[in-house]
Amino acid sequence: MSTEKEVTIYDIARKLNISSATVSRALNDDPVVSKKTKQKIFDLAEQMGYRTNLFARNLRNNRTNTIGVIIPRINSFFMSSVISGMEKVANQSGYNLIISQSSESVEKEIKNVKTLYNSRVDGLLVSLAYDTIDTSHFDVFFKMRLPLIFFDRVVEHEHATNIIIDNRKKAYEATQHLIDQGCRRILHVTAIPRQTVYVERLAGYKQALADHNIKFKEDYVIINDLSHRAGIETAAIIQAMNTMPDAVFVSNDDCAIGCMIALKKAGIRIPDDIAFVGFNNDPISTIVEPNLTTIDYPGYEMGVVAANNLINHLHLNGVAPIHTTNTIIIRSELIIRASSLKRK
Amino acid sequence: MSTEKEVTIYDIARKLNISSATVSRALNDDPVVSKKTKQKIFDLAEQMGYRTNLFARNLRNNRTNTIGVIIPRINSFFMSSVISGMEKVANQSGYNLIISQSSESVEKEIKNVKTLYNSRVDGLLVSLAYDTIDTSHFDVFFKMRLPLIFFDRVVEHEHATNIIIDNRKKAYEATQHLIDQGCRRILHVTAIPRQTVYVERLAGYKQALADHNIKFKEDYVIINDLSHRAGIETAAIIQAMNTMPDAVFVSNDDCAIGCMIALKKAGIRIPDDIAFVGFNNDPISTIVEPNLTTIDYPGYEMGVVAANNLINHLHLNGVAPIHTTNTIIIRSELIIRASSLKRK
Repeated sequence: MSTEKEVTIYDIARKLNISSATVSRALNDDPVVSKKTKQKIFDLAEQMGYRTNLFARNLRNNRTNTIGVIIPRINSFFMSSVISGMEKVANQSGYNLIISQSSESVEKEIKNVKTLYNSRVDGLLVSLAYDTIDTSHFDVFFKMRLPLIFFDRVVEHEHATNIIIDNRKKAYEATQHLIDQGCRRILHVTAIPRQTVYVERLAGYKQALADHNIKFKEDYVIINDLSHRAGIETAAIIQAMNTMPDAVFVSNDDCAIGCMIALKKAGIRIPDDIAFVGFNNDPISTIVEPNLTTIDYPGYEMGVVAANNLINHLHLNGVAPIHTTNTIIIRSELIIRASSLKRK
Repeated sequence: MSTEKEVTIYDIARKLNISSATVSRALNDDPVVSKKTKQKIFDLAEQMGYRTNLFARNLRNNRTNTIGVIIPRINSFFMSSVISGMEKVANQSGYNLIISQSSESVEKEIKNVKTLYNSRVDGLLVSLAYDTIDTSHFDVFFKMRLPLIFFDRVVEHEHATNIIIDNRKKAYEATQHLIDQGCRRILHVTAIPRQTVYVERLAGYKQALADHNIKFKEDYVIINDLSHRAGIETAAIIQAMNTMPDAVFVSNDDCAIGCMIALKKAGIRIPDDIAFVGFNNDPISTIVEPNLTTIDYPGYEMGVVAANNLINHLHLNGVAPIHTTNTIIIRSELIIRASSLKRK
């Protein structure tokens, strides 16, 4: 435990009794330095614990084999599935992931981009924070031609690929399923339609109503943060309505289940009085009683596809530029369970 | 989009018409280079997108304000709570977290340590992989006096602080609670007792039995990976027993709930036929019916304490060496719910 300070090129130079400029040149793979001297310098640098840096990295094709991931929050089954999928591909290809959370804040996301850039990641996989609209903080990656893929929460960008599910279509199917069950007063509980996922789901919900001649009512759209607690609050809103809805389509399972449990406690029968459809197919949806009808959102597959695309791009060394692929849509499906089956 | 290659000191030197050695010296804050020249070099380096590296970092006290986190898996409520707690403290103190998963493999953990070391993190927060016994891969951090804190899955190390709950005591309380409910044939479902958390829980279970003159039976300990699926398999094992147990104490909630649901489907009444206690207090424990008795494992608090300790150490610049604190025990408690209440 004698070494306290970080090893510098000066320490290496002193030990080998050569100039620091020679060490710097060697670490930069300058042909001026002989192979023999270089080897000596590399060996000592490793032995002394000199940290890999730009110069050392230049020797091996400027790659760290590290992929940066920025996500809003880790605390969802969907997001941990995405990361599992990414890990699997990364491991197979000899890459390592480093993950950072934006905690749904664009300011934090900006810091994350800087941190990961300075950590010398080879590319970035990003699901945007709730309040990210301007994406210029990613320009440093685009400028350096470091590949970037958006998934789930995406934005159109000429130099990035987007990986999504067809949120509009799936919301349409969920709403149509409820209409098929005889429901007419269908509530939609969702997040502020700022990120495209929520915009698209709202659009799908509206379209299904329109196609079945059901008038869209502004006060049938409830906006909250989609937490379990928000679901409990939604239950109170529902109970206070003059005419209760006969169905609720919620933009995630957590919030749907919070709402269901609170309504059940108040003696409201599910699905007989109110039918429920969630979104994500979290494991929790098969634990709540009755089991929750939901959209299976294949997070694992999304993670696999995102990481595969990024790594393929890295291996091709830009031969197939990432911006030739605009959007990849992952298959997803409506899973019908007891919570929405009024007609048994 | 013209810049393709990473900026080197040679590019900076060329633009300023000075030698690369001067650039290198300036970035290394060598007093030989004048302040004016240094400023010119710094400004151009920033403008050209030269990546922060060892040399640049030396200028600001050798810190990146980045903390590395290594965890077995993100996919648990407990672990995402831990990370939320860490993020909160890190944000307040101007630090950024980068997280990597060992996926329960020591080989992956070794790679993570290297990646985070080369990402120049200021310190490390670690929960060990399932199969980590030897911890020499962390020596590179100890050698550089970079602080390291283990949490949850820990190992005794003279230079690291451990943050844990009292697993033995809590397992004792869980088992005693079942005994108090009149249970005598109590199964313990847990992971291979390799990591101390599982060793300690098994010890607490055994001690409670011994203190109440209940004979410990080897075949009443079921070892699996504590997944939901493993819980379903455990239900099959229970049903095949000559005499069924009257209680099950499981080392997490996921597995307990998988087992409960499978037994319920087979017509076994909970808690009347078999009482259940889990571990962690995941939100899922209040969704399953009957609600699950469990140990509240305060992940958020654990994350806060871990990050606080690390950052305090960094701010004190080693004045209070981290290895003066050996172990911090976080408060946790048994939460009694319907799944274990035989005596109402």
